[in-house]
Amino acid sequence: MNPNRNAISIHLPEWFSDFMAAQGDTFPSQEERMRLAINLAKKNVEHNTGGPFGAVICSTRTGQLVAAGINIVITAHCSLAHAEMVALTLAQQSRNSHILSECELASSTEPCAMCLGAIPWSGVQSLLCGARGADAEAIGFDEGTKPRQWRAALERRGVQVTRNILRDEARAVLQSYKRRGGPVY
Amino acid sequence: MNPNRNAISIHLPEWFSDFMAAQGDTFPSQEERMRLAINLAKKNVEHNTGGPFGAVICSTRTGQLVAAGINIVITAHCSLAHAEMVALTLAQQSRNSHILSECELASSTEPCAMCLGAIPWSGVQSLLCGARGADAEAIGFDEGTKPRQWRAALERRGVQVTRNILRDEARAVLQSYKRRGGPVY
Repeated sequence: MNPNRNAISIHLPEWFSDFMAAQGDTFPSQEERMRLAINLAKKNVEHNTGGPFGAVICSTRTGQLVAAGINIVITAHCSLAHAEMVALTLAQQSRNSHILSECELASSTEPCAMCLGAIPWSGVQSLLCGARGADAEAIGFDEGTKPRQWRAALERRGVQVTRNILRDEARAVLQSYKRRGGPVY
Repeated sequence: MNPNRNAISIHLPEWFSDFMAAQGDTFPSQEERMRLAINLAKKNVEHNTGGPFGAVICSTRTGQLVAAGINIVITAHCSLAHAEMVALTLAQQSRNSHILSECELASSTEPCAMCLGAIPWSGVQSLLCGARGADAEAIGFDEGTKPRQWRAALERRGVQVTRNILRDEARAVLQSYKRRGGPVY
């Protein structure tokens, strides 16, 4: 082991900042939040920078964008760098707090087992999902072993879940990734 | 959102590099790996830099240390920075690969729901656990909603699980954290 390695550093691709700088500041509706998450997934596919997944975190009070993320597992050499994990970490670092109060997470595809486990620790109040887990599995992605009735489990922990927001658009990104022959892991 | 925020940066505390530099290079036995994970947890408590949890990754072939991690949720402002997640990320970044082949993860306490979900994505072949999830819950930590029969689920995915390695020593660190009044989240 290199004992001098005492920091984790994960960089998003260059297009990400440019793309985000061109977005508005507030996303009042569920559909607007989900459309941004889906557009991030689409851009990630077009730029060949990762899997077909995007995530967005907005304030539930003001609709203001707090952070966004994309899947950069392969480019960042990090199996944990799913879109939701990237967005949650950027949001927490931006607020200097490990608890995100008054926040909603929009995920272009239902979270995998790891991301589901991460959501209650993050403090977000609600989760919006676009494509279904089955849509990701249909193109070969593994969703992991989730608890049975994971939505009920999240809701018992105070996280409201809404599914199928713009599901067709979200699924179309998954399918375009498969057509391009993107790596599945 | 600050659109210039396009990187995640997580720093481990200063004592971590010094402590790791003083360790050996290889940890051939399960007990040696677990003792290092437990000692990391203990140091983290003594230095007030995070929760009472440590994790170690070694090569299953050579016993060589690949990476280690500690819980730095509060100090890093990152709810995802559990010991296992930190160790997995440092190991992957050190190998420049999102898949850790021929690696074993030793965790001073059984992984929470998020870390359990992360393990199959990381590529590790086996998991050693010290204290039980119930030992962490006994001092107030929430382990999350795990799949029923999570060990069987991991083993079906090719990750061998061994529990109760030095459990008493590992549990003693949890109890010392509670006695010191460390924050529980």
